Amino acid sequence: MIDLIQQHIQNKDMGSIKSILSAAEEMEILFAFNDLTAEEQVIVFRLLTKNQALLIFEELDTDLQHNLLRSFTDERAIELVNELAPDDRVRLLDELPAGVAKKLIAALSPEERAMTNVLMGYKAETAGRIMTTEFISLTKNMTVTQASEKVRKQAEGKETIYTLFVTDTAKKLEGVLTLKELFLADPNATIEEVMTKHTIYVTTDTDQEEVAKTLQELDLLAIPVVDMEARLVGIVTIDDAIDILVEEATEDIYDQAGLADVTDNESGRSEVLIHGNLWKIWKVRLPYLLATLALGMLSGLVIDGFEETLEAVIGVAVFIPVIMGMGGNIGTQSSTVFTRGVVLGHIQLKNFFRHFLKEIGIGLSIGVLVGVLAGTVATVWLNMPMLGLAVGIAMVFTMTIAALLGFLVPYILIKLNADQAAGSAPIITTLKDLVALIIYFVCVSLLLGHML
Amino acid sequence: MIDLIQQHIQNKDMGSIKSILSAAEEMEILFAFNDLTAEEQVIVFRLLTKNQALLIFEELDTDLQHNLLRSFTDERAIELVNELAPDDRVRLLDELPAGVAKKLIAALSPEERAMTNVLMGYKAETAGRIMTTEFISLTKNMTVTQASEKVRKQAEGKETIYTLFVTDTAKKLEGVLTLKELFLADPNATIEEVMTKHTIYVTTDTDQEEVAKTLQELDLLAIPVVDMEARLVGIVTIDDAIDILVEEATEDIYDQAGLADVTDNESGRSEVLIHGNLWKIWKVRLPYLLATLALGMLSGLVIDGFEETLEAVIGVAVFIPVIMGMGGNIGTQSSTVFTRGVVLGHIQLKNFFRHFLKEIGIGLSIGVLVGVLAGTVATVWLNMPMLGLAVGIAMVFTMTIAALLGFLVPYILIKLNADQAAGSAPIITTLKDLVALIIYFVCVSLLLGHML
Repeated sequence: MIDLIQQHIQNKDMGSIKSILSAAEEMEILFAFNDLTAEEQVIVFRLLTKNQALLIFEELDTDLQHNLLRSFTDERAIELVNELAPDDRVRLLDELPAGVAKKLIAALSPEERAMTNVLMGYKAETAGRIMTTEFISLTKNMTVTQASEKVRKQAEGKETIYTLFVTDTAKKLEGVLTLKELFLADPNATIEEVMTKHTIYVTTDTDQEEVAKTLQELDLLAIPVVDMEARLVGIVTIDDAIDILVEEATEDIYDQAGLADVTDNESGRSEVLIHGNLWKIWKVRLPYLLATLALGMLSGLVIDGFEETLEAVIGVAVFIPVIMGMGGNIGTQSSTVFTRGVVLGHIQLKNFFRHFLKEIGIGLSIGVLVGVLAGTVATVWLNMPMLGLAVGIAMVFTMTIAALLGFLVPYILIKLNADQAAGSAPIITTLKDLVALIIYFVCVSLLLGHML
Repeated sequence: MIDLIQQHIQNKDMGSIKSILSAAEEMEILFAFNDLTAEEQVIVFRLLTKNQALLIFEELDTDLQHNLLRSFTDERAIELVNELAPDDRVRLLDELPAGVAKKLIAALSPEERAMTNVLMGYKAETAGRIMTTEFISLTKNMTVTQASEKVRKQAEGKETIYTLFVTDTAKKLEGVLTLKELFLADPNATIEEVMTKHTIYVTTDTDQEEVAKTLQELDLLAIPVVDMEARLVGIVTIDDAIDILVEEATEDIYDQAGLADVTDNESGRSEVLIHGNLWKIWKVRLPYLLATLALGMLSGLVIDGFEETLEAVIGVAVFIPVIMGMGGNIGTQSSTVFTRGVVLGHIQLKNFFRHFLKEIGIGLSIGVLVGVLAGTVATVWLNMPMLGLAVGIAMVFTMTIAALLGFLVPYILIKLNADQAAGSAPIITTLKDLVALIIYFVCVSLLLGHML
C-alpha cells in the first residue's frame, strides 16, 4: 500500500490515493502512515474521511500530531483536538507551544474544556495527568443484566470497557470487575456479589512510572485513580502504561549518556536530538560536556603537580590513559548495575550496605586480575619492574574505587532526592580520575623514588 | 500486611499467617510477596491454599519461581508446573537447568506436554516461543449469540477473551473481533458481518521485540500468530509485550555499559549481576574490561612512540586525559542518539547518510566550542600559546571524529547483522583514543617543533 501511495503522490494522483484509503482499514492506514515522510503524511491525512482522520490522529505520536496540526486551518485543528480523548488531548496540549495550546483550549467545547482543565491541574508525570476520565462506573446493587445494559449504552467513546468500576453515591471506589467476569456471571446476581472488593488503586499524585509498573506487575488492563477523598476520578489504561515504561527506559539511557533533559517532557528528548535545530541540540548535549571539560581539567592539575615525577620517568605517561580508562569502564558498569537494579526492583535501598560491600568485593577481585595483567605488561614492555608494580597497584585501587563510586554516588543522589542517573556520570568520572592519577603518581614516587 | 507477616515469621506463628492469607485477596498477597525475602517467600508460599498458590506462582518472575520450585518436593513442583499457562511454563522451563526442565516436562500431563513441546520447538525470542495457544476461535457463519455462547463456555483458562479470532475449517485466520464489538453487536448478525477482515498478524518466526512494538504502536490487547501456511497457531498478549519491551530496553542499557550477555536470556542478566556468585558476575563483566584493557594498551603504544615529544615538552601530558575524556563523552552521546533513534524509529537506516552528515556538523560545532575553551585554558595556564593551539586543534578533531564514529560504528555493525550496541563501545573508544593521541602529538610536533 505504501509504495502505491508514494507513487501516486509523486504523480499527484490524489483521486487514486483517496480510493485506496477509503477501501483500507484504519490499522492498515496507520501502519503505512508511520512510514511516510512528514510532507507525505500531511497530504495523505487531508485525503482521509473525517472519521478515519480522527482515528489515525489519536494513535499518532505527539510530535507527528503537532506536525499535522501546523498544516491545518484553525477550525480544522480545533475540530480534531475537540474530538480527542481527554488524556490524549492533555498530552498533545502539553507539548504544543503555550500560545497554540491556549488558543486550542479556549476553542474547545465547554464540556471538553472543563475535562481538559481538570486534567491539566495535576502535576506533570502523575496519574492525574495521564488518566482518562472516560470510564464506566456501576453501583453495587445493580444486577448483572442491568450492568450489562449500562455498559452497552455507555461503551461508545470510552477508553476501555474491559475493566468496570463500582462506586457508591459519593463516587467512592468500592470495587472493580472485568467485562469477562460480567460476561460470565449469572445474569441475576448483583454486582456486589461478582465484583472484587479489595481493589488496587493509585492516587492522582502517584508518579506515572509507579502507575505503569503496577499495571505491568499485576497484568492489569486498567487501574483506577482516586482523589484525596478516595473518590474515583479517572483510570489509566495499559496502552498508556507501555508508552510510559518505554519512555522512562529511554530517559534513563539518555541520562546515562550525559544528554540533559532540558525539554521537560519525555518524548521531547529523542525528537530534539534527531530533528531539532543546532541550538536545541546544543542545549541537550553541551551541559554535560562543559561540566566534564571543567572537571577534566582537574586531572590536568594533578599531572601538572607531579611534573617532576613525569620528567624523571617518562614511561609513566604511557599508562595514564589505560588506568583512567579502565576505571571509567568498571565505574560505568557499576553505576548501571546499581541504577537498573533499583529501577527493576532487584536492589532495595534498605539493603544498600549489603549490595555495596559485594560490589566493592567484585571491584577488588576484577581490579586484582586486571592489575596483575597490566602490571605484567608494563614490566615486560618497558623492562621496569617497579613501574609495572606501580601500574598494577594503581589499577587495583582505581578499579575498586570506581566500582565503589558507581554504587555510592547514585545512592547518595537518590537519598538527596536528586535525579540520580543524570548527575552520576560526571561526578563518578571526575572523582575516579583524580583518585586514579593521585594513586598512580604516589605509587610511582614511592617505588621509583630513587630515579627522581 | 507485610510487616505483620514478617513479625509472625519471626515468632514462628504460622497459624496467624495462614489466617491472614486466607482472608486476603490474591492481589494483596502478590503485592506483599514481592517485598519478602527469598526465605520468607518459601514460608509464605507453603501456607497458601492450592488455588492461591497457583495464582501467585503464575505472576512471579521466573527467578522467583525457580527459587520456590527448588524448595518443593518433586510432586508439588510437577503439580504447579502442570497448571501454569503454556507460555508461562515455557518461559520457566527455558530458564531452569536442563536436567530439572527435562524431568518436569516428562512429568507433565500428555496434553500439557504436547503443547509445551510445540512451543519449545520455535526459536528463542520469536513470536512462536512467547505465544500462548489458549485463545478462542470462532467461525464466520456463527451468529453473535452463538459466538457469545462459545466464548462463555470456553472462557475459563484462556489467556484473554477480549480479542477473538475467526478461522476457516483449515484453521486459516480470516478476521478478528473484540469482545467489545461482540458485546455491542446485534445478536442476530453473523460474525462475518461484525469482524475486522484485514487483520494485523505476525508469524511464528517474527522477532519478539517486533511483536511487542506492533502491539504497543497499534494499542492492541492481543495479536494473532500464524504459521507458514497462514494457520492461526497462537496469540501474544499485551502483558507479555510490556515485559518484552522493558527487557529489551534493559538489554540495551547493559550492552551500552559493557555488560556481556552470556546468560542467553533476558531476565537473566539483571538477576546474575546482583544475586549471582562471583564467577557468574565475572563472566558478565570481564569480557568488556579485558577487551578494553588490551585495546587501551594501544594508546600506551602511541604515547611511547612520541616519547621524545613528551620529554621535550612535559606540559603535553597535562592535557592527554581531558582530550581523550572529551572524545569519549561525545562519542557516548552520539552512539546513544543513534542507537536509540533506530530503536524508537526516529532514525531510518535508509536515511543514514543525512543523519550522519548532521552529526558530523554537530560534533564539529561542539568540538570548536570546547576546543577554543580548552585551548584558551591551556595557553593561559602553562603560558604556551602553541601548546594551547595544539590542544584546541586536537580537541576539535577528536570530538568531531568521536561523534562521527558514534554513528558510523553502530551503523556498520547493524549492517553486518552483528549485535550493534554490544560491540560499539570498545571499538569507538579504541579508535577515538588512538586518533586523539596521534592528532594531539602530531599537532604538538608541528607547532612546538622548535622545542624538540
